[in-house]
Amino acid sequence: MPDNDDVVKFRRFENFRWDGVPLQEYKEHKGDRPGEGWRDITRQVIAGRFGEPCSFRLRYFEVGPGGFSSLEKHQHVHVVMTLRGRGKVIVGDDVYDTRPFDVIYVPPMTPHQFVNAGDEPFGFLCIVDADRDRPQPLSPEELEHLRSLPETAAVMRV
Amino acid sequence: MPDNDDVVKFRRFENFRWDGVPLQEYKEHKGDRPGEGWRDITRQVIAGRFGEPCSFRLRYFEVGPGGFSSLEKHQHVHVVMTLRGRGKVIVGDDVYDTRPFDVIYVPPMTPHQFVNAGDEPFGFLCIVDADRDRPQPLSPEELEHLRSLPETAAVMRV
Repeated sequence: MPDNDDVVKFRRFENFRWDGVPLQEYKEHKGDRPGEGWRDITRQVIAGRFGEPCSFRLRYFEVGPGGFSSLEKHQHVHVVMTLRGRGKVIVGDDVYDTRPFDVIYVPPMTPHQFVNAGDEPFGFLCIVDADRDRPQPLSPEELEHLRSLPETAAVMRV
Repeated sequence: MPDNDDVVKFRRFENFRWDGVPLQEYKEHKGDRPGEGWRDITRQVIAGRFGEPCSFRLRYFEVGPGGFSSLEKHQHVHVVMTLRGRGKVIVGDDVYDTRPFDVIYVPPMTPHQFVNAGDEPFGFLCIVDADRDRPQPLSPEELEHLRSLPETAAVMRV
């Protein structure tokens, strides 16, 4: 158990950064196979990686104009709250147009992708279990299915 | 396991309410013993109580002008992000003046209280483990200690 006093208790917000929270790349670039591509995203792990005894992580992702997250699936769920900008978010067969503070739930093994739909940064909180599985790319059948639906086909980036 | 399709995937935000999320009282009024009092707070459990397989809960609390949460402690931690208004927040021996999007971490067994410090609602997200202990009032010694410190004495409400 870390000493309680080791964990910072207050992090001032300014311009979508939090005191003492490093700005990281979204994730490693693995390649451009379908479902592994992404563009212009940063990650800040706000809570859960500083020694806090809790079973979750609070992260903030920011997608620049033209940017998008990888189109992926996994067993663990996402609870997302948007904070700035406009997004189009694929969750399964559906696409949601988001405004700040909207909440998105991504169920287990459900394909999902976050796409910036505006000219300013699209930022969102994403809460996950600390103990979770790795994201997987979609199967060819899943990709084909999303390409067959007009709404997801218009948004998906692979 | 609940069917994934049973959980709403998108909740539109409007005026600090989220579609389909009930507005609840902060908690039961147990009395006015020191540490059990609170005033003018609502609770919305945004995620984690609808059948999502996750180990956390995302709640939103809103404290009206003049309102405050109970001064309490517990083993589980809080990760808080303010969304609106101004607060004064006691965490241990410290008091933080909050603006929107500031982040507060409450370590285990650390006395804490959220006090509205302005004329508009003070609202904040609070993430907790789903599996957690019940809050406890402070001991007489802990109360006396906070009363002996000018900064906490000026803010605390019991």
